[in-house]
Amino acid sequence: MKCLIIAAGKGSRLQPWGESKPLIPILGIPLIERVIRAAREAGADEFYVVTGYQGDRVRDFLERLAERLAVRVTFLVNDDWEKENGLSVLKARKVLHEAFLLLMADHLFEPPLARMLTTLSLADGEIALGVDGNTRNPLIDTEDVTRVKVKDGKISGIGKGLADFNGLDTGIFLCSPAIFAALEQSREKNGDATLSGAVRCLAAEGRAKAVMTRGFWVDVDDPAAFKRAEKALLDRLRDKPNDGPVSRYLNRPISVRFSHHLAKLDVTPNQISLFSFLCSLLAAGLFALGGYLALLLGGVLAQFASVIDGCDGEVARLKFQSSEFGGWFDAVLDRYADAFLLFGLTWHLLAIEASGWVLFTGFMAIIGSFMLSYTADKYDNLMRERIKAGGAAGLRMGRDMRVFLIFLGAVTNLILPVLVLIAVVMNLETLRRVLLARDA
Amino acid sequence: MKCLIIAAGKGSRLQPWGESKPLIPILGIPLIERVIRAAREAGADEFYVVTGYQGDRVRDFLERLAERLAVRVTFLVNDDWEKENGLSVLKARKVLHEAFLLLMADHLFEPPLARMLTTLSLADGEIALGVDGNTRNPLIDTEDVTRVKVKDGKISGIGKGLADFNGLDTGIFLCSPAIFAALEQSREKNGDATLSGAVRCLAAEGRAKAVMTRGFWVDVDDPAAFKRAEKALLDRLRDKPNDGPVSRYLNRPISVRFSHHLAKLDVTPNQISLFSFLCSLLAAGLFALGGYLALLLGGVLAQFASVIDGCDGEVARLKFQSSEFGGWFDAVLDRYADAFLLFGLTWHLLAIEASGWVLFTGFMAIIGSFMLSYTADKYDNLMRERIKAGGAAGLRMGRDMRVFLIFLGAVTNLILPVLVLIAVVMNLETLRRVLLARDA
Repeated sequence: MKCLIIAAGKGSRLQPWGESKPLIPILGIPLIERVIRAAREAGADEFYVVTGYQGDRVRDFLERLAERLAVRVTFLVNDDWEKENGLSVLKARKVLHEAFLLLMADHLFEPPLARMLTTLSLADGEIALGVDGNTRNPLIDTEDVTRVKVKDGKISGIGKGLADFNGLDTGIFLCSPAIFAALEQSREKNGDATLSGAVRCLAAEGRAKAVMTRGFWVDVDDPAAFKRAEKALLDRLRDKPNDGPVSRYLNRPISVRFSHHLAKLDVTPNQISLFSFLCSLLAAGLFALGGYLALLLGGVLAQFASVIDGCDGEVARLKFQSSEFGGWFDAVLDRYADAFLLFGLTWHLLAIEASGWVLFTGFMAIIGSFMLSYTADKYDNLMRERIKAGGAAGLRMGRDMRVFLIFLGAVTNLILPVLVLIAVVMNLETLRRVLLARDA
Repeated sequence: MKCLIIAAGKGSRLQPWGESKPLIPILGIPLIERVIRAAREAGADEFYVVTGYQGDRVRDFLERLAERLAVRVTFLVNDDWEKENGLSVLKARKVLHEAFLLLMADHLFEPPLARMLTTLSLADGEIALGVDGNTRNPLIDTEDVTRVKVKDGKISGIGKGLADFNGLDTGIFLCSPAIFAALEQSREKNGDATLSGAVRCLAAEGRAKAVMTRGFWVDVDDPAAFKRAEKALLDRLRDKPNDGPVSRYLNRPISVRFSHHLAKLDVTPNQISLFSFLCSLLAAGLFALGGYLALLLGGVLAQFASVIDGCDGEVARLKFQSSEFGGWFDAVLDRYADAFLLFGLTWHLLAIEASGWVLFTGFMAIIGSFMLSYTADKYDNLMRERIKAGGAAGLRMGRDMRVFLIFLGAVTNLILPVLVLIAVVMNLETLRRVLLARDA
């Protein structure tokens, strides 16, 4: 599907943040890149971008992006970028002769929202607009937004001042070429060259469909909206269903703050994984050094590393850098980190008293931690099936909890109980999984 | 597809082995069960079995088997089971009105051979016979076998005494109902009620196709053939492409001999896995006990456990008991066994001299062994792709080699060098895999 993106405006309300609005990075990625990536995931594969203010810079950036993403981008120039946005749309009249997705460079959204439109079948002469049914959407400046009145799946009114409304204009359209005639009509008859004007003309003839949604979208229009958008993108990192309790309530809230800043820097997720691993290694060394101070420092450092360990995935999601290798690399480093931390604690205890039982406990803690990860895949699949089948999932003591216990043990100088706990719980849980898998 | 199996004969040449030939177990599984399982894998789903000698016993067994395998079996009785085999085929005349697979209860084969026939399209009035192109097949008694002459994909001659032949009758047919008329014709005209006689009649009219094969099949007719069949089934366990060199040249040849006997007992593959694990645990205990004698015994026991560790999979393959859980359970136990063996050796050394370096080496050997297994899946996938792409695969130091080194170290009382070697090789290999995966 073809996709037209309006990227001509100056965005003067965001001027302090950058010179060309579509290129303003939000959490490390320019607005227009986020829009193109989301549209691509929703099924668009050929892009038409209308540039205006600082068009050459936008064009330079997009030419490089097109190469990276292997998509085709055609550029259209609108020198009247200071006038109404409908004029930008009209620039595509000669090149778009079939249904196309119409997006704004400064409206971020999740792919499913656009997919609701790309999968819609449109009658000739019709357009469809994504309408947010949540009129009190906290992400949106409800004073400034374009309001929509929807009736029986069709738009019956649209405008900023609308008093009677039940939806918000998301700025995401599926258009047939009829939009061009409607823009001309609105301009000539009403002297209104805005998109809303054209939609009003089509709505009057019952040709403007509304696709209701409650999905994520945000219009990045001014500094306040920019902050809201950043926060929304960060908040979305926190609902990971696999997170254990320590992750959810302690690590994740902190790591998201780190990721907020890390995303703006030129560091890769794999570099973050490696940094977290090196912190764990250093913590293990501190454990082995002996003495309470080193133990305490090591415990804090281990917990810090565990927090940072969340950032690699978060930054990867924020910056579209997720990779199969990245996830595997992180898992491999985590296994080494776990083993070194437990070995450091064992060493610490052995230096105080060279006991066979301490050695055995440390060994069982290391092997138990390992087995928990090793047995996970099969167990996870079983659990998914059980949960689907209506059964209950067992509690799991994941890495977040393990490292947190190590942290607590170090702070309270109670290492042996922690090692015993980890050794017992991890190996019993492995046994439980074996029995569970056998009976499945 | 429907499948007719002739299981009426007495098999007097195998009388010492059991009373009803189709029920004689070969490596723990009755002949007819092997035939039905192979036919099912080749696409047959509805079975017709002609019984004769001790028909009730055959029927009892098959009724239980049908339930276990969830297939339908219909029984046909041939009281003239002492006469020619064509009479058994004729018993199915009233129930089979379309193309069907025709098999002998004492002819074992691999599913692909039968699939060549089930996927064949047969013209009305035709039959097809699987013909072994290897006239010197060492599995077959070439004096007693029915010989076939094939010309242009059709059978031009068939019979035991045939002087000019280029193939052997595998006893695996795809028939149209024309086979029944041909049997009648052969009986009436030539007084010959054998299947070969019917094939001769069809061949004379160019209606007997030959499907050439070099796949595994064997006619279990007398004690010598029975021995050959057993050996062939066992030999097939040895060509596992994933086997390391120690497995291939030392462990597997021994474990196959064990499996030969284990298959005849009532032990499950998972019980064998557990037994092997307990042997490893005992070996680790002997290591930790101290002294050369215990070390030597432990080394021998560890290597013995490694050999037995091959039997679970072998027995599973021999007895159709492979399961996803079985493979996973074996892998989980192997990880524990590896860790305990290395921990036992470390303990042995620490008892002689409590050195931090020894402790660290033992730890690195344990974690390295673990990481090799943990990183395997992704690495294996990469390797498969590389090998497909024409690249070379690296050498791998698998579990077989690891345990063999432990055995050598214990026998020669050189444990520390073995631990160092395992620690270095395993962790370097893990690093190599990370780099390889990154660049892939």
